[in-house]
Amino acid sequence: MLTGMKMAFLGGDARIIEVIRHVLDLDATVYLVGFADLDLPANDAIKTDLSPEVLKELDALILPVTGMSDDWTTESKYAARPIALTDEDFALLPKHCKIFTGIARNVLNETCRRHGLRLIKLMELDEVAILNSIPTAEGAIQMAMEQTDITIHGSNVAVLGFGRCGITIARMCTGIGAKVKVGARKEADFARIREMGVEFFHLADSNIELTQSDIVFNTIPAPVLTSEVLSRMQKSCVIIDIASKPGGTDFRFAEKRGIKALLAPSLPGIVAPKTAGRILANTICRLVLD
Amino acid sequence: MLTGMKMAFLGGDARIIEVIRHVLDLDATVYLVGFADLDLPANDAIKTDLSPEVLKELDALILPVTGMSDDWTTESKYAARPIALTDEDFALLPKHCKIFTGIARNVLNETCRRHGLRLIKLMELDEVAILNSIPTAEGAIQMAMEQTDITIHGSNVAVLGFGRCGITIARMCTGIGAKVKVGARKEADFARIREMGVEFFHLADSNIELTQSDIVFNTIPAPVLTSEVLSRMQKSCVIIDIASKPGGTDFRFAEKRGIKALLAPSLPGIVAPKTAGRILANTICRLVLD
Repeated sequence: MLTGMKMAFLGGDARIIEVIRHVLDLDATVYLVGFADLDLPANDAIKTDLSPEVLKELDALILPVTGMSDDWTTESKYAARPIALTDEDFALLPKHCKIFTGIARNVLNETCRRHGLRLIKLMELDEVAILNSIPTAEGAIQMAMEQTDITIHGSNVAVLGFGRCGITIARMCTGIGAKVKVGARKEADFARIREMGVEFFHLADSNIELTQSDIVFNTIPAPVLTSEVLSRMQKSCVIIDIASKPGGTDFRFAEKRGIKALLAPSLPGIVAPKTAGRILANTICRLVLD
Repeated sequence: MLTGMKMAFLGGDARIIEVIRHVLDLDATVYLVGFADLDLPANDAIKTDLSPEVLKELDALILPVTGMSDDWTTESKYAARPIALTDEDFALLPKHCKIFTGIARNVLNETCRRHGLRLIKLMELDEVAILNSIPTAEGAIQMAMEQTDITIHGSNVAVLGFGRCGITIARMCTGIGAKVKVGARKEADFARIREMGVEFFHLADSNIELTQSDIVFNTIPAPVLTSEVLSRMQKSCVIIDIASKPGGTDFRFAEKRGIKALLAPSLPGIVAPKTAGRILANTICRLVLD
């Protein structure tokens, strides 16, 4: 339980709503800043502005997943305007107050460091990133289903990269009944891929290994689907690239060649905000008592 | 190979295009009636009208999946108007000519019987129906992904019915990582469900077994999701009903209770026309030589 814990939320999206619900269930005292448009049962949470009285008492400050931008604002889906913070706001926080964010830019990092505040970057925690690979993989598979006129079952699926998301995509596609092969570079990865009963290949051989692929999922944030590789792939192949921007695909060449290639934005918050929110909620509730 | 076989197509949708491609690859002589809007490489197939010269020579007449309606027409996605047939057209066909259709209404059944022509109803063949359960299941899962804000992985999924589609949906959802349970009535089905490592329950207990379900797939064309069952389900539950019209859900009550319930149309032709077409193509090519 979080009875007696004082937590403030500074904007966010549907994922943060799930976190708010969760901490309310655990009896935390919740202050909401930047949620004017959010309908909540009365008395459950306190809608307020950032005031010294609130800040001085906080045990946790929860920023949106996108964090605070370098112009000292946070975005909220539930308010007309961004929420503005100042250095003085951080100065007022008790030293034991934990700051939660998804990702952190320079100013946020620097400000917390200067004030001796513990900054927890949720998206960098392995426990969050691994669980986030589930909605990411499902979102990528959903996109593949929508973009193809064939079934995943029975199709030739290639997964590039065997990190947190690559593992999950490979496992789910296998579960649906696809013929999956995974491209990686490390011998230990090859061993694990074999253990999963899935085919593997060395990424250096992508130019010959992807010629029969119907669907390619790329998870590697480096140029892997180069023009050379793309030139040997089937025109009917669909590429779902979930690597962080700008992805690992030569999108210009893919379009020229007539291959459908999509750079998938951060999928968890889009395709399964509730699941993504629960993942954050569980970790926040554990760490706030840590 | 189908060298020397004369086959005529009377309209259809994207699935039939896949069949046309396949029989052309196998060297059949192909007549296309009702495909004015279809772009095909010249000389591959012969676009024509229904003429006695063509009809007298046919080894196979392939109707759209929807068959011939009782007003003697067939629908084509690639023609402005339906294609009209007459009893005389059937009379001109050689006795060995096989008629392929997805489903057959009264007039088509009766006409073929009267003229002693073999009518093959593809959708009634087990080999086609089982393979069609793959695009059906993927389409249903895709809909569930689109309609929920949670992942399939980790969610409580119930599958009502353990026929061709129920089996496939249960297997795929398990493969994605859902907590699956299947409702059935027969002891032999319970045994097979256990063998798959999936939970099961008797459909008569639906009112207590579905209270925690996040997603329910119904495959049974009878009233199973009654108001009594629905009244005990979570409001956040999503129902995908793939049973033939009118489905097995009390849709009026579901809406009243605020439960999202969707009657899914015949999914294979919508979500994976190419896969669905290949399934038909393989069976037609086998049976035309039979």
